[in-house]
Amino acid sequence: MKKLSNLALGIFLLPIKFDTLIIRFGGEIGIKSEWTRRSYENLILKNIKKTLTFYNIKPKEFLRHPGRIYIKMEKPLAASEKLVKVFGISSLSPAIETTSDLGAIKKRSLELAKEKLGENSKFAVRCRRVGSHPYTSMDVCREIGQAILDGLADRKLKVDLENPDAEIQIEIREDKAYIYSEVFYGPGGFPLGAQPKLVCLLSGGIDSPVACWLVMKRGAPIIPIYFDNYPFTDETTLKRAVAVAEKLAEWAIGYPMKFYIIPHGPNLIEIKEKGPERLTCILCKRMMYRIAEEVARKEKAEGIVTGESIGEQASQTLWNLKVLNEAAKMYPVYRPLIGFDKVETERLSKKIGTFEVSTRKAMGCTAVPKRPATRVKLKNILEVEKTLDIDGMVRRSIREAKILTLSKK
Amino acid sequence: MKKLSNLALGIFLLPIKFDTLIIRFGGEIGIKSEWTRRSYENLILKNIKKTLTFYNIKPKEFLRHPGRIYIKMEKPLAASEKLVKVFGISSLSPAIETTSDLGAIKKRSLELAKEKLGENSKFAVRCRRVGSHPYTSMDVCREIGQAILDGLADRKLKVDLENPDAEIQIEIREDKAYIYSEVFYGPGGFPLGAQPKLVCLLSGGIDSPVACWLVMKRGAPIIPIYFDNYPFTDETTLKRAVAVAEKLAEWAIGYPMKFYIIPHGPNLIEIKEKGPERLTCILCKRMMYRIAEEVARKEKAEGIVTGESIGEQASQTLWNLKVLNEAAKMYPVYRPLIGFDKVETERLSKKIGTFEVSTRKAMGCTAVPKRPATRVKLKNILEVEKTLDIDGMVRRSIREAKILTLSKK
Repeated sequence: MKKLSNLALGIFLLPIKFDTLIIRFGGEIGIKSEWTRRSYENLILKNIKKTLTFYNIKPKEFLRHPGRIYIKMEKPLAASEKLVKVFGISSLSPAIETTSDLGAIKKRSLELAKEKLGENSKFAVRCRRVGSHPYTSMDVCREIGQAILDGLADRKLKVDLENPDAEIQIEIREDKAYIYSEVFYGPGGFPLGAQPKLVCLLSGGIDSPVACWLVMKRGAPIIPIYFDNYPFTDETTLKRAVAVAEKLAEWAIGYPMKFYIIPHGPNLIEIKEKGPERLTCILCKRMMYRIAEEVARKEKAEGIVTGESIGEQASQTLWNLKVLNEAAKMYPVYRPLIGFDKVETERLSKKIGTFEVSTRKAMGCTAVPKRPATRVKLKNILEVEKTLDIDGMVRRSIREAKILTLSKK
Repeated sequence: MKKLSNLALGIFLLPIKFDTLIIRFGGEIGIKSEWTRRSYENLILKNIKKTLTFYNIKPKEFLRHPGRIYIKMEKPLAASEKLVKVFGISSLSPAIETTSDLGAIKKRSLELAKEKLGENSKFAVRCRRVGSHPYTSMDVCREIGQAILDGLADRKLKVDLENPDAEIQIEIREDKAYIYSEVFYGPGGFPLGAQPKLVCLLSGGIDSPVACWLVMKRGAPIIPIYFDNYPFTDETTLKRAVAVAEKLAEWAIGYPMKFYIIPHGPNLIEIKEKGPERLTCILCKRMMYRIAEEVARKEKAEGIVTGESIGEQASQTLWNLKVLNEAAKMYPVYRPLIGFDKVETERLSKKIGTFEVSTRKAMGCTAVPKRPATRVKLKNILEVEKTLDIDGMVRRSIREAKILTLSKK
C-alpha cells in the first residue's frame, strides 16, 4: 500500500539528493570580539578543509556567513560523519539548496517531507530568514506546512509545533533557500590551533585521553607522552596507549601528533630500590612531571596535562597532588578532570570514542604498592630524592625516548 | 467518576504516608578499598545528620547497609529536598516500610499504586531482594503487578516493563520491605571533608562558583576569597559575591565557610600607575594568586581554585595562564573549568543554583583595558613587578582583609 503510493508520487527508489552542508559555529565564538571571532572562523574553515582533504571528500564551494558556513558538495551526509570531530563546530545539517522563490521551496520541501515523514507522523515546519522577501517567515511555515499536508494527504500527517516526530527546516538567505530536517551535533569549543601546544601524560586508561580531549576542545593541539614502565608493564599497555592516541588523532586531522614513548622502567627500578614502597607512585609521578617539563621545553609547548581527579586514586588526594605539583617548576599542570566523577569521565570517553580502547585488557603497573601513602609529606619525598640521580634520569629518559608521529595530515 | 472510585477505595483525601528515606551512595565510593569506603560512608552519614539538624528535621532511626542508608522519619519527601545537596549521595527515595510478608507488601504496594497511577497508565513493578524468602524477585513482580491490575481494574492500567509512566519499586531486605516510586538524584562525588580545604578565587560571576562547587563535590571544603576592586567595582559586585557564596554554603551544611574580602583596589591602583595598560589584568591576577597563597598558608588549605578556562577571556590564553601560574610558588592552582565550554558552565551553574545570582546586575571591573594582551611574556611582567612593592601589597591585603563566616552550622 505504502509502496504503491510512493510509486504514484514518483519517488520510489529515488532517495533525495542533498547538495549542501550547513555548518554552525559554537555560541561561545559568536560572543568574541570581531577580530577574534573572524580569526577563529578562519581557523575552523581551514580545519574543515584539511579534514575533507584527508577523507578525500571534494567540496565544490564554500559560502561564509556570520556564524555558519554552507558547503556545496555531493554526499553531505557522509561528510557530516567526519566533520562532527572538528572542534569549533556546534552543529551540522545536510541540506537541499534552492532559490528563495516560494514555489521552489515548496517543491523541494515536499520532496524532503516525502522521505522523512512516515504515516501518521506529527511534523513542524520552521523557517529562518535573512534578507527581504515578498513573504514573512510565518507565511513560509504556513504555506509549506499546508503543501505537505495536501501533497502527502494519504499519509494522514498532523502538524505539531510542540512535540513533532520530525521537522522540516527552511533557511532563507537573500536569493537562496536551504531545506533540511536533520541536525548533528559537533563538539563545540574552539578550533584546534587557536591555542599553543600542550604535552599530556597519556597512560591509555580511561581518564588521560578524556583530559587530552578536553584541552583539544579548547583549541590546544597535544603531544601525548607515554611512560613505558616495562618490566612493570608490558607491550599490551604500550599498544593500548598508542591505540588511544590514534583515536584522539581523529579529532586532530591536519595536526600531525607526536607521540613520546619514555623508557620509564629504569627510573622506576631506581625509585623502588631507594625509596620506601608506600612512596613509589609519588616518586614515580614526580619524575614523570619533570620529564614532561623537558619534553614541553623541547617542543615549545606551554604546559602539561594530566588525567588526575581529586581522590580518584590513593595517590590523588589533595595532599599528594600538592607534593606532585611541586615537581613541576617551569610549566603549569592542567588537570581538566580535577572535579569529575568517574562516571562522568566514562560517559565522555564513550562519546569521544576512546572508552572501548581504554578498557581493553592491558597489564597494570606491578610497581604499585598495596598500600600507597595518601598523605605524603614533601619533606620525606625530598629526602629520598636526594639519593636519586634526578637530572641523570631526566636526561637519559629524553635521550632514549622514541617518538612516533601519528599523522593525520 | 474518578473521585467516586477513589472514595470507593477509601483513599480519597488520604495521601500516602512515607515513613522511610532510602539514600544511595555514589558508585565511585563502592569501588574504593573497604577501609576507604567505610570512612567515606561514615562521613556521608555525619554530613546527613548535620543537614537534618540544620533544617530541624528529626530522624527516628538510621539503618546502614552496604551502599545505602535507610532513615526512618516523618516526611521523607521534605527531607529529600534538603539532602539532594549532600555530596556523596547518588540518589534518594521516600519509601514505605513494611515486613517481607508478601501479603503486607501487596497491601502497601497497592496503596502506593493508587496514588501514583492515573487512568490508562503504563506501569512496571521492580524488585530487589537481599536475604532468603519463600518467593523469588520474579514472583514478587508478578504477584504485585497482578494485585495492582486487579485492585485498580477501573483505571485500565497496563504493564509496560520497557517504557512505563511510573514504577512501583520494592526492596526486600531480610525481614523488611521498602516500597517506593520516586528516585531523586543527589550530586554524587565524595563527602565534604574527605579532602582538605582549598581557597578559591570567587568573583561572583558565572564561572568561579561552578569551579568551587566541583572541588566541593570531590570532598574539599572551600574558603572563598573575594578581591574587592573598589573603586573599580562597587558594592553591587561585592554583594553578588557574598550572595553566591551563600548559595554554595547550602552545599556545605555543617562546614562553616570563611569568606575573605581582600581590599584589592589599592593594589590595582598601584598596578595601573606603574604597568602598561595592556598588562593590567595579568599583573592584577598574579597579585591575587600571591594573596591567595598567603590565605592558604594561614588557613592550612592545600591549594588554590580558580574559574579559569582556556580562551574564555583574553587573559586566559595558555600563554597568559603560564605567566599567571608562575606567580603561585607554594600551592597548586586547580582550574576545574579548564576544558569547559561556557554553555557547559552555565548549565552546571543553573543546576547548582548559582546562575540566577551570578547574572544579577553588578558593576564590572572598570580597570580592564580595552585590548588586554593575549600573549604576555614573563620577562615583561617581571620587569614591571620589580617596580611594585609586592610583599608590601600582600601584607597589607592580608592585614586589611575582612573575614565573614557564612555559617550553616
